[in-house]
This record gives sequence, C-alpha cells and structure tokens, in this order.
Amino acid sequence: MPTYRIDIAYDGTAFRGYAGNAGVRTVQGELEAAIAIATGSGPDTEVAGRTDAGVHARHNVVRLVLADPVDPARLQRGINAMLGPEVVATALVEVREGFSARFDAVARRYRYCIDNGLVPDPMRRWWAWHVPHPLDLAAMNEAAAAFCGEHDFASLCRRAPGRSTVRRVDEARWRRELDGEVVFDVEASSFCHQMVRSMVALCCDVGRGRVEPGRVPEILQARDRAAARGTAPPHGLTLWEVRYPE
Amino acid sequence: MPTYRIDIAYDGTAFRGYAGNAGVRTVQGELEAAIAIATGSGPDTEVAGRTDAGVHARHNVVRLVLADPVDPARLQRGINAMLGPEVVATALVEVREGFSARFDAVARRYRYCIDNGLVPDPMRRWWAWHVPHPLDLAAMNEAAAAFCGEHDFASLCRRAPGRSTVRRVDEARWRRELDGEVVFDVEASSFCHQMVRSMVALCCDVGRGRVEPGRVPEILQARDRAAARGTAPPHGLTLWEVRYPE
Repeated sequence: MPTYRIDIAYDGTAFRGYAGNAGVRTVQGELEAAIAIATGSGPDTEVAGRTDAGVHARHNVVRLVLADPVDPARLQRGINAMLGPEVVATALVEVREGFSARFDAVARRYRYCIDNGLVPDPMRRWWAWHVPHPLDLAAMNEAAAAFCGEHDFASLCRRAPGRSTVRRVDEARWRRELDGEVVFDVEASSFCHQMVRSMVALCCDVGRGRVEPGRVPEILQARDRAAARGTAPPHGLTLWEVRYPE
Repeated sequence: MPTYRIDIAYDGTAFRGYAGNAGVRTVQGELEAAIAIATGSGPDTEVAGRTDAGVHARHNVVRLVLADPVDPARLQRGINAMLGPEVVATALVEVREGFSARFDAVARRYRYCIDNGLVPDPMRRWWAWHVPHPLDLAAMNEAAAAFCGEHDFASLCRRAPGRSTVRRVDEARWRRELDGEVVFDVEASSFCHQMVRSMVALCCDVGRGRVEPGRVPEILQARDRAAARGTAPPHGLTLWEVRYPE
C-alpha cells in the first residue's frame, strides 16, 4: 500500500486535541477530511504525538496509507491550501510500507513557555502561560534534574488502565530568555498523558517556593497523582520535535 | 484636572483599530469602557499612535484626564482584570496636567515581521506576514536607506486632506533572524497613515526583484501613491515603542 510521512505543525488553540473524536473539531479530523478531498479516498493515518486539547505542535509526524499512489508535492499543496496557516504540512514524502509514525519514533521533545512578566504580554497569550510570580530557576532545575533517567511517572500522569507509566527522560531543563520568557525543554522516548504539564506545574510550585526541590524524588516515588501539583494549562505547551532513526 | 499616562500593549487581531468608532470594536472603545467602569466617570483620552485595524502594539501611550483623582495601581489592576490579556496596561502613573501622549512623543518605532518560510508557521500566523519567496535583504536595505532623512512620503501614505506628508525617518533597517523571520525596524518622530505598510510592500517588491532598489528615490520623488506598490497586510505590524523626553 502506498505509504507517506507527513510532517505537520499546528496552532492547537481552536482544536479539541489531535485525536479524532466524533462531534468535536480535532486536528486529525480536519487533516483526514482534507486528504479525503485531495485524494478522493478515505485515509488511514497514525500520529507520533496525540496532543491534548489546546496543545500546539511545531513538529508532529503522521503516517498516511492510501489505496492508490499520489503525487506527494501536490497532496502537500492541497493540504496547505485547505488547512493553512492553522495546520500546515511542512513536508510530505513517500516512505516504506510498514513505517510507524508512533512506534518508530526514538525521541519526542516538548517545550513549555511561561510568560513571567508582571502583566501578561498580549502577543504571547496563545503560546505561553502567564505566571506573574518570581520564579527561582535554580530550584526549578534541581526539580527537573530529578525527572531525568528512568522512573515510574505515575505521580505525574493521568493514568491509562493497563499501561505502564515507566518512562526514560533524557533531558529536562529550564532557562530564562533575554525577553523574560521562561522556557522548559524536555525530551524522552515517549511521554504519558499530561506528563509534561504535570512536570511544569510541580516545577512552578518549586520555583515559587511552595515545594522544596528536594521533595521531588519522594513525589515521584509515591507513584500517586495526589502527591503532585496538578497540571499547567495546555496553551503553553508545544510538541517541538519528533525524531526517527536516520 | 488629574492626568494619567497609561502605557498599553494589545493584540490588534480582533479590533477595528485603536481609534473609537461607533458600532465597531476598537481598543479605545474597550479601554474607555473599562476606565468608566473602574472610575465611575466618563474618561477623556488621547493616544500616541492611532494604529489601524489588525495592527498590534507592544507599547502605545494613552493620556487619561479624569474629573476626580484615582489610585493609579488600582486603576491599572482594574483595566487588566477587565481587558487582559488582549489589552493590558503595562504601567499607569499620574503625570503633570497638560501632558500630551500625541504631541510630546519624540519618536515612534514600528516593527514589521515577515514569516519567510516556504510554508507558513502556524505559531506566527497572527503576528507575521507569510512571504514564501526568496528575499534579497541587501537590496531591501538599499531601498530602506532611501527612506532615511526628511522626505515627502506622499507616495507611501494614504493622504489626509490638508495634512503634510513630510516626515523625518531616523532608522529603517531589515534583518533576518536565526529562525528565518525577516524583521523591519523603522523609527521616526511620527508617521503618516499606512506609511510603514507601504514601505514594507515596496521593500518586498525590491527584495523579490520586481523593483530595482535604485528606483526607490524616484518613487518617493513622484509624490504619487500610484507610483508605489500597495500596502503590506496589517497583522505583521506592531507599534513597538513610543518615546518621550526624559
């Protein structure tokens, strides 16, 4: 079967998440509808990152299987003409049959942006969470360091029955940009549901002095969501990159 | 009369410009309504930059005259609670009676952002004009250099009857950011209507090779809007800063 890899980016503001769901507007729903119009056939897709409602993507990857081959450049232009600039295909190429956007991915990177000004910046309101309180970045990085390595993240996930919550985090780092924005970059082979936003909420409570950074390992060890600090809002979160073996 | 200076920022996307206009949603209309609720009296305001529909402001300045004095910090919080994060008061202080937001300003700086990627970036769609064509920045800077100094900008303005179109431009410069965004910074004591967007449209045609940069001085000298190249869309434009004497 002709198989394609579509690299996509989207503004998640007006979507109820990536995954298709009858009766609500989703990225998958819009994308499959556009592909159906462009190709005249019902598409079969699989995505690398099933982002939540309101979460954005700078880079997500979709596998598309079609009954009949298409011209990739033409399909890309068709998708962008129908869905851009809210959802865009940044690349579209034919790949080997059997490629899995989800299971072949070796790393996923997310970025969370905090607008740390005293008053919110109107130009960042769709992409950053406004936190007007002083944030201790050193303490937040001490908390983030505790996430690195392999851990059971049950305390920081919305649990899916029967699914492991053990993950290996390869990088988790906070930094302050020159313009005052506070940015969290985190990379892992994969993430559990709401894991990044739970990490951000916990780190912010550490940064505000409400939780000692030294308590983060115990919170992880509790394997209990009640031990954590809720979830940061979705609009600050962006799926930044999905990586595959060369 | 108690007089205040309000420094404001706004996302212009959903406004029909700054200036109040019966029956349409404007920044001035929303701001005056919020001040009326917060103070219980009809506000008298004057603005430094009357931005057009869809144009944003990182920094604009409003003079407010009230019949009775108010606590500036409290009024600022009230405005931000009612209008933020779409419109925010970044500062609010009492100033001498007779302060003019418009006529005391000594410099206004605008920034225009172009998303120069092959496909549009969904995260910049509200703040940058998508121009997918290769742009010759050296040629655009040659064109921009011709704007500097005192000129009659009639070719690059929407004319207001009886108003001079002579302006002194102190800086006009294009640069390419690391992420591919192309940015135009321009500063003058004041600007005519649609002047920055007309400069951008002309420079882009120069950057695309449609107009020789050496023709820009003749286009200015023609003092005729028909000699120019239209106006770039408003959503890429932001009033960046208004400056006053120390």
